[in-house]
Amino acid sequence: MVNYKLTEKCINLLKSRGVELRDIADCVMFLQSKYVPNLSIEECEAAVRSVLEKNEVQNAILTGIAVDIMAEEGKLPYEELQSMLCNDEPLYGLDEVVAYGICNLYGSIALTNFGYIDKEKIGIISKLNNHEGPQVNTFLDDIVGAIAASAASKIAHGGKRIDVDL
Amino acid sequence: MVNYKLTEKCINLLKSRGVELRDIADCVMFLQSKYVPNLSIEECEAAVRSVLEKNEVQNAILTGIAVDIMAEEGKLPYEELQSMLCNDEPLYGLDEVVAYGICNLYGSIALTNFGYIDKEKIGIISKLNNHEGPQVNTFLDDIVGAIAASAASKIAHGGKRIDVDL
Amino acid sequence: MVNYKLTEKCINLLKSRGVELRDIADCVMFLQSKYVPNLSIEECEAAVRSVLEKNEVQNAILTGIAVDIMAEEGKLPYEELQSMLCNDEPLYGLDEVVAYGICNLYGSIALTNFGYIDKEKIGIISKLNNHEGPQVNTFLDDIVGAIAASAASKIAHGGKRIDVDL
Amino acid sequence: MVNYKLTEKCINLLKSRGVELRDIADCVMFLQSKYVPNLSIEECEAAVRSVLEKNEVQNAILTGIAVDIMAEEGKLPYEELQSMLCNDEPLYGLDEVVAYGICNLYGSIALTNFGYIDKEKIGIISKLNNHEGPQVNTFLDDIVGAIAASAASKIAHGGKRIDVDL
Repeated sequence: MVNYKLTEKCINLLKSRGVELRDIADCVMFLQSKYVPNLSIEECEAAVRSVLEKNEVQNAILTGIAVDIMAEEGKLPYEELQSMLCNDEPLYGLDEVVAYGICNLYGSIALTNFGYIDKEKIGIISKLNNHEGPQVNTFLDDIVGAIAASAASKIAHGGKRIDVDL
Repeated sequence: MVNYKLTEKCINLLKSRGVELRDIADCVMFLQSKYVPNLSIEECEAAVRSVLEKNEVQNAILTGIAVDIMAEEGKLPYEELQSMLCNDEPLYGLDEVVAYGICNLYGSIALTNFGYIDKEKIGIISKLNNHEGPQVNTFLDDIVGAIAASAASKIAHGGKRIDVDL
Repeated sequence: MVNYKLTEKCINLLKSRGVELRDIADCVMFLQSKYVPNLSIEECEAAVRSVLEKNEVQNAILTGIAVDIMAEEGKLPYEELQSMLCNDEPLYGLDEVVAYGICNLYGSIALTNFGYIDKEKIGIISKLNNHEGPQVNTFLDDIVGAIAASAASKIAHGGKRIDVDL
Repeated sequence: MVNYKLTEKCINLLKSRGVELRDIADCVMFLQSKYVPNLSIEECEAAVRSVLEKNEVQNAILTGIAVDIMAEEGKLPYEELQSMLCNDEPLYGLDEVVAYGICNLYGSIALTNFGYIDKEKIGIISKLNNHEGPQVNTFLDDIVGAIAASAASKIAHGGKRIDVDL
């Protein structure tokens, strides 16, 4: 059952951290346009929105951003964790674990898309990852990448007309 | 896009290996009835059917049963593989990897449900696992467990009314 | 490269939340004793310790306990998250995602073990899950289960003498 | 316990399908050289070899190549499966599921590395993927990518000296 109130809360939360639905839709377009001719940015944004309606995605957003904020306010109880999160330490890894928790819901295409966008760091993901200003985005950049990768996978599976003549 | 022809093929394939939709629905009931009062066997069967409509689930069924059949006909090219599959060798592990590929699509509840049913081996899963007769079920028993665990997770998420008053 | 200082920190952190290495070793014994005759509690504890030496496990412990503490001190920025964590809401799911991040490192046996122990809730896991007193253990109980399940998998793989005569 | 006999069998099996250890080591070098200055091809090959010593990796190799061979010999029992495997159908997905079963053992870095190399398709992976000649490599190209991604992750974690002064 979709919790629309929580969906809106997550969209606003992303916005407050500098991420618009359209920014994520741009990443989806980057990932999927070569496979789906005539893919529109509106279709990409609709796919992003449907990913954001999932319970597990909402919980990842709430928790990931909460930890990012705790880190940027210096409120985490352990210095080692504080330091790993503020430096987006490459071997930290739990941010990717949370991202895979999202991608897994959309199958193996979502996972390979995530690995690709995580290395290529295009658009909003690059901006989040640049660490300009005091905002900590250690979880957020991976969560945004996972949402984009999942929406791309949704489009890939949805557009497939394999039922015609198998 | 749901490939209904392939869904039917998979249902018939499961039947030909001794697994009815109702058998899987019974496992769902076992997993979920304590959390959902008044859960009917028809709802469980409908959830099973919807899991079977997923592309990735269909591919797991086709491939897993194909490998089981190759093993039981002695047609696998490597003796080590042949022997591991015919004995359902506990450390083989790839059958569980395929099962997780299904469960992951339904979130973390599906994964814990699978782990539980895989140890408890109730109903049809116990029957498949008993290795009576020449039929090899190394992949099939895990795939059936994963379908049941996924359907149970679908019911758990669907019945949740968290949108009322958050 | 093992970070022994961080390993000790994690062991002390677990202790401060009421979890001794021996408690986790007891869970390993429960999971593995039926498969490995003469398994000693010392072997179980050694396996637990080796799991705790892994980077990704240490990061999961630091982060999971930090979030539990934030929740119990009412410091999380979002009321919905605060409430889900304080109630160990069954559909939250991110605690299990973190647990799978640990189990995955030890293969499919670790994952099925986790699903089983998460349902059976024996020993320390039951104690953590009982929510007596003000301590929030939403992440901790799953992390402890994952460490036990992983140590059990390590023993299962290690004791196997498949190299003799294949 | 490492099964050295089976390790050698897998190395020979890869060779018989056109994949040398050095080819996989080249992929590791591509993935890791920017992060580890002075990384030698011998270190990469040693990391590849250690990945190949894992039970779950050996089982993935044996099974994946067996299915590829069945497909190329037209021996699979279902036409739909036969056709998906011979065409390396993009939505098939089970080959990636098997690849993730390998990568998961090496943590989140392995998974992102895999996603990246799977899209970039460099060296041997590109060659396997080109489908020249009658050899079917649907599982093999992903398994090789997963082994390379895992070896790269092993090097990334191993070279980290975080124990000095935390």
